[in-house]
Amino acid sequence: MPWPQEISTNSSDFIIDRDFSVFIHGEVDEHSRISKASVRLISYMTDKTGVFVTEGFPNAKGVSASSASLNIYFDTEVKMAMGIDESYTLAVTDTGIELRANTDVGAMHGLSSLLQLIKVKDGNYVFSGVQIKDEPRFVWRGLMIDVARHFMPVDVVKRNIDAMALVKLNVFHWHLSDDQGFRVETKTLPNLYKKASDGLYYTQDQIKDIVKYADDRGIRVVPELDVPGHGTAFLTAYPELGSKTDMEYSLERYAGIFDPTLDPSNDKTYELLDTLFKEVTPLFPDVYFHIGGDENEGKHWDENEDIQQFMKDNNVKDNHELQTYFNIKLEKILAKYNKSLMGWEEIMTPNMPKSALIHSWRGVNEGVEPGQSLVDAVQNGYQTILSNGYYIDLLLSVEDHYLVDPIPDVQLSEEEADLILGGEAAMWSELVTPQTVDSRIWPRTAAIAERFWSSQEVRDVDNMFERLNTISQFLELIGIQHLKAKEYLLRNIANYQDTHALNTLSQISEPFKIYSRNAGGTQYKTYAPFTLFADACTADAASVRPFRKAVNHYVSNRDTESKELIISDLKKWQAVDKQLSLIEDKAPLVSRIRPYSKRVAAITNVVIVGLQEGKLTNKQLKELEELIGGLEDPEINLDVELAISEELLELGKYLTK
Amino acid sequence: MPWPQEISTNSSDFIIDRDFSVFIHGEVDEHSRISKASVRLISYMTDKTGVFVTEGFPNAKGVSASSASLNIYFDTEVKMAMGIDESYTLAVTDTGIELRANTDVGAMHGLSSLLQLIKVKDGNYVFSGVQIKDEPRFVWRGLMIDVARHFMPVDVVKRNIDAMALVKLNVFHWHLSDDQGFRVETKTLPNLYKKASDGLYYTQDQIKDIVKYADDRGIRVVPELDVPGHGTAFLTAYPELGSKTDMEYSLERYAGIFDPTLDPSNDKTYELLDTLFKEVTPLFPDVYFHIGGDENEGKHWDENEDIQQFMKDNNVKDNHELQTYFNIKLEKILAKYNKSLMGWEEIMTPNMPKSALIHSWRGVNEGVEPGQSLVDAVQNGYQTILSNGYYIDLLLSVEDHYLVDPIPDVQLSEEEADLILGGEAAMWSELVTPQTVDSRIWPRTAAIAERFWSSQEVRDVDNMFERLNTISQFLELIGIQHLKAKEYLLRNIANYQDTHALNTLSQISEPFKIYSRNAGGTQYKTYAPFTLFADACTADAASVRPFRKAVNHYVSNRDTESKELIISDLKKWQAVDKQLSLIEDKAPLVSRIRPYSKRVAAITNVVIVGLQEGKLTNKQLKELEELIGGLEDPEINLDVELAISEELLELGKYLTK
Repeated sequence: MPWPQEISTNSSDFIIDRDFSVFIHGEVDEHSRISKASVRLISYMTDKTGVFVTEGFPNAKGVSASSASLNIYFDTEVKMAMGIDESYTLAVTDTGIELRANTDVGAMHGLSSLLQLIKVKDGNYVFSGVQIKDEPRFVWRGLMIDVARHFMPVDVVKRNIDAMALVKLNVFHWHLSDDQGFRVETKTLPNLYKKASDGLYYTQDQIKDIVKYADDRGIRVVPELDVPGHGTAFLTAYPELGSKTDMEYSLERYAGIFDPTLDPSNDKTYELLDTLFKEVTPLFPDVYFHIGGDENEGKHWDENEDIQQFMKDNNVKDNHELQTYFNIKLEKILAKYNKSLMGWEEIMTPNMPKSALIHSWRGVNEGVEPGQSLVDAVQNGYQTILSNGYYIDLLLSVEDHYLVDPIPDVQLSEEEADLILGGEAAMWSELVTPQTVDSRIWPRTAAIAERFWSSQEVRDVDNMFERLNTISQFLELIGIQHLKAKEYLLRNIANYQDTHALNTLSQISEPFKIYSRNAGGTQYKTYAPFTLFADACTADAASVRPFRKAVNHYVSNRDTESKELIISDLKKWQAVDKQLSLIEDKAPLVSRIRPYSKRVAAITNVVIVGLQEGKLTNKQLKELEELIGGLEDPEINLDVELAISEELLELGKYLTK
Repeated sequence: MPWPQEISTNSSDFIIDRDFSVFIHGEVDEHSRISKASVRLISYMTDKTGVFVTEGFPNAKGVSASSASLNIYFDTEVKMAMGIDESYTLAVTDTGIELRANTDVGAMHGLSSLLQLIKVKDGNYVFSGVQIKDEPRFVWRGLMIDVARHFMPVDVVKRNIDAMALVKLNVFHWHLSDDQGFRVETKTLPNLYKKASDGLYYTQDQIKDIVKYADDRGIRVVPELDVPGHGTAFLTAYPELGSKTDMEYSLERYAGIFDPTLDPSNDKTYELLDTLFKEVTPLFPDVYFHIGGDENEGKHWDENEDIQQFMKDNNVKDNHELQTYFNIKLEKILAKYNKSLMGWEEIMTPNMPKSALIHSWRGVNEGVEPGQSLVDAVQNGYQTILSNGYYIDLLLSVEDHYLVDPIPDVQLSEEEADLILGGEAAMWSELVTPQTVDSRIWPRTAAIAERFWSSQEVRDVDNMFERLNTISQFLELIGIQHLKAKEYLLRNIANYQDTHALNTLSQISEPFKIYSRNAGGTQYKTYAPFTLFADACTADAASVRPFRKAVNHYVSNRDTESKELIISDLKKWQAVDKQLSLIEDKAPLVSRIRPYSKRVAAITNVVIVGLQEGKLTNKQLKELEELIGGLEDPEINLDVELAISEELLELGKYLTK
């Protein structure tokens, strides 16, 4: 995963044993990308298989092209930039493995594929016999991580970069400032990190380290400093630049859209941003610099008489035009530092230079046609990428994201379609911490990565789910904490008693979707606990799809086998409440779950009775509907939804017919 | 843990709820140690309890001394140094919590105690009602981590520093160079990190960051660059300084004691070390600098004619004197940079200045009286610390370490005893990786920390084991990965099938002790897999002590209850093999375990039969002894020992009587 463009399998697997060795052709030293990537491959392989490899490093003494298990050929060590050649071919047979690419980055993609070919055959770990010819569909395959709402330490960023490399994503979009914090050390403007970060920021050395780390893995880094809205942190540091002059700015602790906005009529605003960009842009070698530009509602502009006067004096008609004025100023500053401006779709205004890259994000939740801005962008001659449909913090099923294609379902000229560079999964961090962020990003983002890399025709959902399960294991191998974090959270909730029942319950419970967990942004503040049951649960709860299959089969066939399967599942879920009752005395967080587990027991009980008796009365169905409807009761809900509710209602209705 | 010097408990617990708040008295800003420590306390507390706290920061708006739940008083923000005042008093009642200390570091120790007072009472999380008056017994309470044999990234170091703070350790001894790598970026001598680290080293910025991180937690950092022995990395970078001139040095991949040694007769050696120390010492504010000095067997000195001539010319009688010559040169260089020399006990020679600190480490394994060098040191007027008895990489039971006291069992004058500053747990990393290191250090080191902090009389082993279980949970709360890593390793071994049986087996299996896992240092190289069953197992396997108790009770009382308990345990362990047989097809690493689990089944079977029939024949006993003895068979052993072997033999003998 992502599925290659061309793949044929053979039964000639390569057995992994202690003689495994790597030979890289051409002049490469041990510090080169491909050498380090090869060392990582060997290390992951030995970790997974437990095989003691005699030669732990590529091109070790005594390893030659003819003796090596894996031969790597490539032509050029490339400088990372959009549009470099990322293609590769990979051939695995029982006699050896050959990886060929035009660039070292392409070769590294080949290594990511190779790693995923590890499987068990006849009692051995092997590399599966294949012939692969592969290249990406889109040049821009991104993951955005918001480190402002909740700061993500260096190791969290690094392990997610490793995961990106595994699934061939190539742009790490780093959302570095927002109302809740400014996360970059700036020597020329020290207030920004000293007064507006709670001490949680990246030193410049750490930033360079991460950029290098990403580059080593074939990943570009695009930084974002969000202006002029989302500006509370900026204005906590430099309140004199605010559009509301009598306001005491302080770091935002809640989630939501806030009013503090930079004053676009103040020359000092541009002086400060120039100073900032001058210092910060050299940290990021990539040509693109993301200036945010989203969700500025202009309330403080409306209220500020000076700004209103400025608009009159300069013939600026409305806030939208004022923001355009601001953006164009920024575009010029960035151009001085050889950066191309990129911004969320709101920056797309008539005067915006065509060199700007438009980041399409809004959709139904924002009251607009999903991805419409993408179509508008290319029809206006802008390059664009798509994030609408890939907001993984919405906690939707991976299926919903997987089936969204960056190429919209409207007629575009070839030239227009070429302006669509790809897409980005977006991980906003209002409701995640370093501990839980991995389980929100992964494994779902692997499916999105496939959307960006693989052919448009690859869209079999069942097949994707199957492979998602495998990639999840490889993600853990390379350091992603999604599985570990869940177990820890359940242990913490159980106060170190048996977690079996909690785990069972989590398999049918999904955290609230589409930000309904934190309606109004008021309950979960920056420092709220994210160690609750909802945090241990994930989208696509594990038991849901198998249960759905059984229910579908049963209502089509009314067969005993499906019925028994369903009853067995239901009894398991019904039993959770009793089991939790045994541990709640020593675990206050379990007590909080009991009303929910009790309700689940009541709900499952109705359906079990119905199945056993072969029918439900209308009264029983009504009871079932009320029990399920009542899950939203604040006394019961835990910011999770019972993810098998639809199936249970379907069963109930079927049994009532 | 560690147990306070004076503690009295009351039933007046403080209930943790959303109104929890902290007020720090005196002029402290948000960047001060105590403020940050308070934020961490609140954060850990909310993580553990799931309580939404209204005010997430100390001295928040509206929080006053009278309204605050926790009032913190202290007199001085101290500069970290040996011997600062670390005392504190802590009073918890249902109306509030008061923490008083002379220094901010003392107050932070109080916060570590407070965190550990969290417990469940009547369905709530509370701080247990207590009155504590506390101060450390020793000024030097250290943990050494070797980052040379296996490199430990910044986040591994940081989380272990957090754990140190939790148990009031105050010296992080950072073993930064050895035959397998040199881990410090050095701009004046770039070969050291470029040629001798495999790219795995700390940048100077990272080092400063870690030193600051430790300082923020009341922990001093003592760096070690090991010379003149353990010098392969040095000589890989600068072979011209080697004592063997015709040798091609390259980073060591094996474990053991190796010959490469700096040439003490070469002036360039001292020039290089002067250059190195000049650059490196400012990174470490602490006055002590550890130069290693251990395990130099002088083989290359003996073989080098120039060195032999040098010895003659300078009237140096033997290698020991030659090393003295070297050490005294170093002492002078370090003194230039205001550093006091510290070294392993081998540096203690007649001419060594009394300002040197002697690190006592050798014992039975090295053929000497354990801790003898400590006695010698103080009798010769040196300050000293003890590590013999605290080598946690030996993987002994925590009991063995806990009962070792830094004050030896010989008559010392008060003056001599005062020279014993404390001790250090030592974590050598030949057989650990970033993934497994936490489970090797923790929780055992918490008991060693108690030895260094608490009164000498605190030595009840049962009580310690009970509290160790609790501290283990707090260690996980603050980020230690010992429990998570184990579960992951079992998942990996099972290739993501059911891990229940593996886990059961791990509860009676302990990794080989005293380096016998890697006899000769030949099997496990730097890059060998440390994802095996032995890596998932730990010292003090969980089922062993309860089983021992049951066996002891049974052989004393021959009671049915104990018998049934024992049989039930044995059947559980016997069943593992069958369960593993069901998953081995898909898990090659499980196949490797089968001979062991099969043997465990055979062994337990003999004892079950004996218990059920009330007796064993001599033949059956002999069979049992052979089965247990045969566990060492290379076909069977997995670098673990069956930790209930003694109890089974005892049972067998008892049943044969």
